[in-house]
Amino acid sequence: MSVLVVGSIALDSVKTPVEAHENLLGGSASYASVAASFFSPVQLIGVVGDDFPKEHIDLFGCRGIDLEGLQVVPGKTFRWSGEYQWDFNSRETLSVALNVFEHFTPKLPQAASNAPYVLLANIAPGLQSHVLDQSQGARFVIADTMDLWINIAKDDLLALLRRVDMLILNDSEARQLTGETSLIRAGSAIRRLGPRFVAIKKGEHGCLLFSEDAFFSCGAYPLEDIHDPTGAGDAFAGGLAGYLASLNPEEVTFDHLRKAVVYGSVLASFNVEAFSLGRLQQIGSEEIAQRYDTFRRMTHFELVS
Amino acid sequence: MSVLVVGSIALDSVKTPVEAHENLLGGSASYASVAASFFSPVQLIGVVGDDFPKEHIDLFGCRGIDLEGLQVVPGKTFRWSGEYQWDFNSRETLSVALNVFEHFTPKLPQAASNAPYVLLANIAPGLQSHVLDQSQGARFVIADTMDLWINIAKDDLLALLRRVDMLILNDSEARQLTGETSLIRAGSAIRRLGPRFVAIKKGEHGCLLFSEDAFFSCGAYPLEDIHDPTGAGDAFAGGLAGYLASLNPEEVTFDHLRKAVVYGSVLASFNVEAFSLGRLQQIGSEEIAQRYDTFRRMTHFELVS
Repeated sequence: MSVLVVGSIALDSVKTPVEAHENLLGGSASYASVAASFFSPVQLIGVVGDDFPKEHIDLFGCRGIDLEGLQVVPGKTFRWSGEYQWDFNSRETLSVALNVFEHFTPKLPQAASNAPYVLLANIAPGLQSHVLDQSQGARFVIADTMDLWINIAKDDLLALLRRVDMLILNDSEARQLTGETSLIRAGSAIRRLGPRFVAIKKGEHGCLLFSEDAFFSCGAYPLEDIHDPTGAGDAFAGGLAGYLASLNPEEVTFDHLRKAVVYGSVLASFNVEAFSLGRLQQIGSEEIAQRYDTFRRMTHFELVS
Repeated sequence: MSVLVVGSIALDSVKTPVEAHENLLGGSASYASVAASFFSPVQLIGVVGDDFPKEHIDLFGCRGIDLEGLQVVPGKTFRWSGEYQWDFNSRETLSVALNVFEHFTPKLPQAASNAPYVLLANIAPGLQSHVLDQSQGARFVIADTMDLWINIAKDDLLALLRRVDMLILNDSEARQLTGETSLIRAGSAIRRLGPRFVAIKKGEHGCLLFSEDAFFSCGAYPLEDIHDPTGAGDAFAGGLAGYLASLNPEEVTFDHLRKAVVYGSVLASFNVEAFSLGRLQQIGSEEIAQRYDTFRRMTHFELVS
């Protein structure tokens, strides 16, 4: 099965307490599509300007990502710059220039509109809905979001939620969206807004997955050295969606969803080990399988005999 | 095997945003000994004043806890009062009256000094060492501690750490003790101070367990309704130590330690469901086994087939 991934494609400037790099490949759809490509065919929907480096196009190409839905238009690519604090837990956005993204209207080629899996990576919920309007083949829709949209486009977001199978968001966003301080209550409250499944990310503390009658708590992969947290959430969403897209949507069980959350965590853990998509360019199925296995050994305990 | 538990025994006044109760049974040794008693014979070492209610003595008695090492001396029992903020994550100590605890000198009866397992629940590290000096049968020593001792008795704590097999502390304390922001680095750094095993508690985010060559990440049991967080860490330590004490110290593997951490988490999760030891008085082996099983179902995922 294939997965359509729509979101932002950006040129990032990122500063950490240790390093600073400019003009990096970034954006939610970049991270998510590459992460998904390890599991399933990916159709990328997005927009870049005519300044977008060919090497980034080639990176998508090397991962076998279908670029028919990638619009290259006159003007500059979306740019973002940010700085992380010493503990990597908080970051400040230094500048945002929407550029060609300001007038982005996603248009789905035929193949993409037939994709059974749709990952609406983090962009405005209005755009996410617009993609869904064209997704005739959609049978399993996953949406990511962020605090900005809860603040400035909550009605659009609520309208979108009624149309998606799964929402991914972080713990503070889940609390913000629902007004519940308990994440357990927040997960249930979000399900009442539409999504059958909700994944609440807790950063270094892992992820919680909710369905109607099941719950999964997944720890985070322990990392000693984080180089750049940018895109970790997008890589998580991409790994999760990519793994699911290797299955028939009708066959997806809660056990598959658990695995999907672990694969998402594995991709996110690789992603933060280097700036931009540097680490995801180096790994393959074997490294992913190894880390999945390590993850399992680190979190499992035995039944009482 | 039996486990010696030493720590504070207190009369607490606890206020939450919802309820307030006075003269509750509290103290690190009270929670820890009752939690341990579900798994193994327990010898309690502590001190109370002649105002200590008989019903609390009876509670220990009902749990089969050996009270030969419990000193009842003229004067008032140690008293603590605290208030929790709306999210239960922060609390303020309103008052502390050491009373008979000020001149507490633990003395071990013969049976207690022969106990193969020793749980040094949270009290001053000097007192913990004093108990260890008398523990002739000790073969597996677990110590709990808190930020106060890192601040005012760090040398005593460092001296103690060279003599214990396992240290239990929370995430902020681990960072404070080592100066490492990464908990993974902090766990390794604490191991270099002495303990073979380190358990770092992360509150609602679970617990990390470190050994020389293995690592375990345990989620917390998800709770919708927390009534009183007091003693959760002590119940965790007690459940952990009690389960281990059901084994021969020479036979303890890392798989047993994983289980011990889960049992500790199970006891802590029950403990916060009511004030004082109210909930631990209601449960039995069956409830504990059920929650252990639920815990396992919530955190496990399958091998890749």
